[in-house]
Amino acid sequence: MPYNIADPGRDVEDLVVRKAKVFREKQGIDLRTKHRVETIDQKAKTVKGRNAKADDFEIPYDALLIATGASPIIPELPGFDLPGVMALKTLEDGRKLKRFIHEQDAKRVVVIGMGYIALEMCEAFRAIQIQVDMVKPRPVFLPWMNQEMAAVVQEEVEANGATLHLGQEIRGIEKDNGRYRVICSHIALTADLVLVAVGVRPNSELAAEADLELGPSGSIAVDRSLRTSGENIYAAGDCADAFHVVTDERTWIPLALRANRAGWAVADNVTGKEVVLDGIAGTAVFKVFGLQVARTGLSVSEAESFGFEPVEMMIKARSRAHAHPGMSPIWVQMVGDRKTGRLIGAQLVGREGVAHRINAAAVALHQKMTVEAFSQCDLAYAPPFGPTWDPMLTAANQLLKRM
Amino acid sequence: MPYNIADPGRDVEDLVVRKAKVFREKQGIDLRTKHRVETIDQKAKTVKGRNAKADDFEIPYDALLIATGASPIIPELPGFDLPGVMALKTLEDGRKLKRFIHEQDAKRVVVIGMGYIALEMCEAFRAIQIQVDMVKPRPVFLPWMNQEMAAVVQEEVEANGATLHLGQEIRGIEKDNGRYRVICSHIALTADLVLVAVGVRPNSELAAEADLELGPSGSIAVDRSLRTSGENIYAAGDCADAFHVVTDERTWIPLALRANRAGWAVADNVTGKEVVLDGIAGTAVFKVFGLQVARTGLSVSEAESFGFEPVEMMIKARSRAHAHPGMSPIWVQMVGDRKTGRLIGAQLVGREGVAHRINAAAVALHQKMTVEAFSQCDLAYAPPFGPTWDPMLTAANQLLKRM
Repeated sequence: MPYNIADPGRDVEDLVVRKAKVFREKQGIDLRTKHRVETIDQKAKTVKGRNAKADDFEIPYDALLIATGASPIIPELPGFDLPGVMALKTLEDGRKLKRFIHEQDAKRVVVIGMGYIALEMCEAFRAIQIQVDMVKPRPVFLPWMNQEMAAVVQEEVEANGATLHLGQEIRGIEKDNGRYRVICSHIALTADLVLVAVGVRPNSELAAEADLELGPSGSIAVDRSLRTSGENIYAAGDCADAFHVVTDERTWIPLALRANRAGWAVADNVTGKEVVLDGIAGTAVFKVFGLQVARTGLSVSEAESFGFEPVEMMIKARSRAHAHPGMSPIWVQMVGDRKTGRLIGAQLVGREGVAHRINAAAVALHQKMTVEAFSQCDLAYAPPFGPTWDPMLTAANQLLKRM
Repeated sequence: MPYNIADPGRDVEDLVVRKAKVFREKQGIDLRTKHRVETIDQKAKTVKGRNAKADDFEIPYDALLIATGASPIIPELPGFDLPGVMALKTLEDGRKLKRFIHEQDAKRVVVIGMGYIALEMCEAFRAIQIQVDMVKPRPVFLPWMNQEMAAVVQEEVEANGATLHLGQEIRGIEKDNGRYRVICSHIALTADLVLVAVGVRPNSELAAEADLELGPSGSIAVDRSLRTSGENIYAAGDCADAFHVVTDERTWIPLALRANRAGWAVADNVTGKEVVLDGIAGTAVFKVFGLQVARTGLSVSEAESFGFEPVEMMIKARSRAHAHPGMSPIWVQMVGDRKTGRLIGAQLVGREGVAHRINAAAVALHQKMTVEAFSQCDLAYAPPFGPTWDPMLTAANQLLKRM
């Protein structure tokens, strides 16, 4: 949606891959929108609820999939229910936001939060000449990231005209002469629009009420076949947890690929083709202005909290070969575990060649490879795409020395 | 060198990372240029030869490294010794070629060969408005590649103004009124310059004369510590072979990363830090005009020749998410082995996101991963960099179904 919102010439509807009609008419799926399920009756094997016309309904199931997704966290503070205070999750959110910008001719936005949705939206706003202030309570920008690398990202955001306010507790939002004032601990920021992007929480109330086991952050706990603790009840998507391939523990990192993959796996399992999912590495990438930012596995502090003995190495390398025109810097951080020698995390920042480079490390995490084994990999080289030793290998070599 | 040759404003010397002077004066290395070693006396542990002043020399060794590289293959046909008929391997070759283009004001080139050096040079010539004819005896363009993907590359080369002549045996080259005529089986091509780029051969004569064991294509056979069959004699670089991580057999794929890595490993082994190299996956990438072309592991025919039961899948996917502007097609081929389920090769072609995507497959080959295990990997997703399911995963999923 951020990319669509930045483009006034495109309709939000462009983002819809498949409409309800197709499900109903072409695929023969009894798709019922405006039907809110309120309870799961595990004994009777039915779901019960109420539709938009206030009619009760009850539907029996052989197998049940809970795919309720996640919702943006909206702080319980004064003013967060004002009309110009918005979050971005559903298509309707996007539609509303885009319409609001256009109709109100918004010139200034305050973004609450500095995660990747906040940063992608910051870029989208700047692309349509909207002034952006970003604000968050914690004093550290991208706290999961190597701080030298985080500083590179912060500089990029600031160089593109956004103003960052770190360490500002949010007290509330006030309406002010047709605009909005975000009251923080030390400052107040005025804007035509406030975007709340402080994270999401899993929509697991229904599962909790049905006494299904919950996982981290209140997500719905599922096994590797996406089965919840309830008989013939599955959960998939942003509402469900996953096993982390580095820690082998349950984790909740709601991202698109896992959500999609889990959906397919449930379909297979329900229809009799048993599928067991390996788990996730927490691989993620985002673009913010001219930078690509990627990560997989654990940060140093995450590694510590899971009982690893993390050793970190950060290198600055080149995106292209020495003497090749168009070269830009690329930063690679790698984390190894001193006890086992394993590679347990990697982060990348750069102007090019970041988004797919991270995947080599992601595969290594799935295989529980040692830093040494990874350092021996035969990665691709050509002058337009990197130095002879790929920055990932240089980072691994340097990390190995430190370990 | 191709990129440098295409840029008249840059000196070939720009490519030199470290000059002889630095080795001699800063690193204390007794670097002797213009000294040709003619024999290795394994009993006496000396090398003997003659220098440019025709003086004999003899140097004792505790350990010996043969790092003689590879040389372009020059067909033994009439006219290949003419002054305007050149190959490109050494810096001196590059200097000579660049000078010749400039001094002769070359307007037309015939390139003999259609491998990646030939294609990179084709792009370089076109960048400086030189007409290019490319010619080769075999009828198939990029024979190691999935032929639908090879056709995409061929179209790109032709769309950029080069003319390809496949299935033309080369009979010889004649001087013709200050220009050169390349006489082929069915046509004759006239140019100001002929570039011979039909491959390289290992410089292993010295090793062969010392009765060292040879590997594939006449390369020098080395173990995983880069030791030849001779006592305390190592070989590294384009003259030496390597173990292939897919076949576990000896192979000879002379590329920069392996050469460099092998050099470092010999240094470690000679100085007492035992290093054992895993081997190579044959990972390679090149750019030709707007396309990136990458491969790792085995092609279908290579797989067959090594006794695998290859199953191939080729998909066409998108370089960016659905509805994201700037999207271009990306082709992925994957090869699995029906007997073991293993992933044994991958190829990629596209305008963006190819060069580093291949590395995920390369890591998988090092780990002898199955296609199924690879298909489960948590690869990065963001709309500017690919669809939710990375094309590598889609290819693996489709291949899995076929297997």
